[in-house]
Amino acid sequence: MNIKVPKGFLFSTAEAAIKKPGRKDLALIYSEMESVVAGMFTSNSVKAAPVKLDMKRIKSGKGQAIIVNSGNANACTAEQGLKDANEMAALTEEALELKAGSVYVCSTGVIGTPMPMQRIRLKVPGLSDSLGGSSIEDVAAAIMTTDTFPKVVSRKIKVDGTFLTISGICKGSGMICPDMATMLCFLMTDACIERSALDSALRSAVEQSFNLITVDGDMSTNDTVLMMANGMAGNALIRKASAAFERFSSALSQITLELSELIIKDGEGASKFVKVVVRNARNNEEAQRGAFAIANSMLVKTMLYGNDANWGRVIAVLGYSGIIIREDKTDIMMNGIRVAHKGKSTGRDKEANERLGGKDIVITADLHLGKGTATVLTCDLTEEYVKINAEYRT
Amino acid sequence: MNIKVPKGFLFSTAEAAIKKPGRKDLALIYSEMESVVAGMFTSNSVKAAPVKLDMKRIKSGKGQAIIVNSGNANACTAEQGLKDANEMAALTEEALELKAGSVYVCSTGVIGTPMPMQRIRLKVPGLSDSLGGSSIEDVAAAIMTTDTFPKVVSRKIKVDGTFLTISGICKGSGMICPDMATMLCFLMTDACIERSALDSALRSAVEQSFNLITVDGDMSTNDTVLMMANGMAGNALIRKASAAFERFSSALSQITLELSELIIKDGEGASKFVKVVVRNARNNEEAQRGAFAIANSMLVKTMLYGNDANWGRVIAVLGYSGIIIREDKTDIMMNGIRVAHKGKSTGRDKEANERLGGKDIVITADLHLGKGTATVLTCDLTEEYVKINAEYRT
Repeated sequence: MNIKVPKGFLFSTAEAAIKKPGRKDLALIYSEMESVVAGMFTSNSVKAAPVKLDMKRIKSGKGQAIIVNSGNANACTAEQGLKDANEMAALTEEALELKAGSVYVCSTGVIGTPMPMQRIRLKVPGLSDSLGGSSIEDVAAAIMTTDTFPKVVSRKIKVDGTFLTISGICKGSGMICPDMATMLCFLMTDACIERSALDSALRSAVEQSFNLITVDGDMSTNDTVLMMANGMAGNALIRKASAAFERFSSALSQITLELSELIIKDGEGASKFVKVVVRNARNNEEAQRGAFAIANSMLVKTMLYGNDANWGRVIAVLGYSGIIIREDKTDIMMNGIRVAHKGKSTGRDKEANERLGGKDIVITADLHLGKGTATVLTCDLTEEYVKINAEYRT
Repeated sequence: MNIKVPKGFLFSTAEAAIKKPGRKDLALIYSEMESVVAGMFTSNSVKAAPVKLDMKRIKSGKGQAIIVNSGNANACTAEQGLKDANEMAALTEEALELKAGSVYVCSTGVIGTPMPMQRIRLKVPGLSDSLGGSSIEDVAAAIMTTDTFPKVVSRKIKVDGTFLTISGICKGSGMICPDMATMLCFLMTDACIERSALDSALRSAVEQSFNLITVDGDMSTNDTVLMMANGMAGNALIRKASAAFERFSSALSQITLELSELIIKDGEGASKFVKVVVRNARNNEEAQRGAFAIANSMLVKTMLYGNDANWGRVIAVLGYSGIIIREDKTDIMMNGIRVAHKGKSTGRDKEANERLGGKDIVITADLHLGKGTATVLTCDLTEEYVKINAEYRT
């Protein structure tokens, strides 16, 4: 894949041995010019220290760099955690000679353990000096925790005669049920765009992507999406409700959707990529609630792992999901095979079992009650997920 | 354990090869005299055919026998399922020469597959002829699905000079998150008791036991608790709000609590028995909601399997559970070790990890916000759970 990086963005990475030595775990994203910044954060009431810091800073709508580490989430770390996040920002501002408030901080990893600040302090000046020495993929690799591959997506679009680039990286393969944002995602563009337009494009993109995926139903304390737009492409300012805005917004949505899919494909221990579609529910909200209930059901996830078109489990989940369904109107399809019609077996389970043998699964529940539709992405539940999460801190 | 059976209850079991041959999978519970009957049923809006049948019949408050099968849940089977459940009741009434409406039907097993009525029909007369030929444990064994041991609890109590016996059996080790009743539980007593008193004792017992356990957060379509009281002990009628009622009610609660604990100990693939306590929440309802969120979290369950006192995951769950918590007031204890104080590590994780090595786990979250308390029972999540549920229908 040919990764395009927007103009004016530079990267560097370092090994600070935050959880253990042996890999790059600290990264810097820097824009040569001050950027317009938009962000979305976890709706978990327990928020990590860097999330609290960023939520304050984003009020300015501006920024120039992001410092991010893996290995430690700096969450559930009380006042010391806030001090540490502030210090990470201040050290970076000092090294980059930026004004206070220009740097955002993100952390991901173990919760409840104080940040190893003595090791981080040593590395920040070097990050500044080596800017440009790392690729965007290096940053995507440095922010991985249980991820098995770095996640980078980018697009070049032409708006009013000017080429603009949007690039995104993200991480996150467990504790994924974002509801507002995924674990960590950084989006960069050289577009010149109004702050409110950037904000609105980001919100719409996240709602249709990161907010519709789930690995395990566990919502993180650190979920953050940050987007920087530095205007260096030299295009005419993009304002809301313009054709240029629609073009930009649609490209951004494609990028976040692709990143979401990469997260699910890298779901902890996942062996299958699963699309859950609920259609013809009473309304979109009920469709989404039903789809999430199916996607989060341990019995559905294990059944998919076992290549078993046990559609009764899907109807049972819809039954307790809290939405309205009529058993005698409900159809269930698995990879194109209608296994249940009007709540009753069609006798095609074996045929469906064979279709479930591949990696890509689509489960569709047609409720025949209204026009509400939703699609949620998830993965199956395997012994490997259990192993990864039983051994996470060891 | 010395199992006591109340006067006048007889049992029989048979092999109908409902899912596959090789085990007893059909059982009959019969009382020599008509009984007062109370029951509680799944709150899943998708209800199995026998549940629908029993919910109608229980309105009479009376009954004399229960026919129950494992291997097939007779759920998601549309009209044919209702016909089959009705036929099972009618066949049993005929064989036992009972009036219509005297027999309750319960089924557990695979969802969405029609009942193999031709094999069941052949076996019902024999069940009637062999009444007394099976023990209560035989019935408990016949209703097992993925259970690994039969679950029987009984108590003898003295009320107003008369000995009464209460016995209970149950099954259920997956798809457990009852909210109104567990998979299947049958309670029998020779007490003479008013119907409304029996009902009220049962409701109170279930609320404090089966409604506070969860294996996987998946609620079944078949959850049923049925209790029969045949009055054959010859005691004076037990009425509500009497000392005798309190005595009876408390013994019943102990039995259902012990049965709940057996279900969790036999949780699919479980290696640990886990008590989750949330205390000093704003109120009991929030405490219970928080405790269930912790108990159902895949990340908490896998962490316990890994003997890892990763308390940050517990606080993160409380943060997204929807209840009010203050991170800087929250203490977390694991098997007596305070691992977090006021939202911060106490540095005692390693000590706690060692304490988690055993089979019995207590996780306590003290929110320091009010007086709400709740205890929920659950188990850990292991590779074995995944294996069992991936291969369930094969």
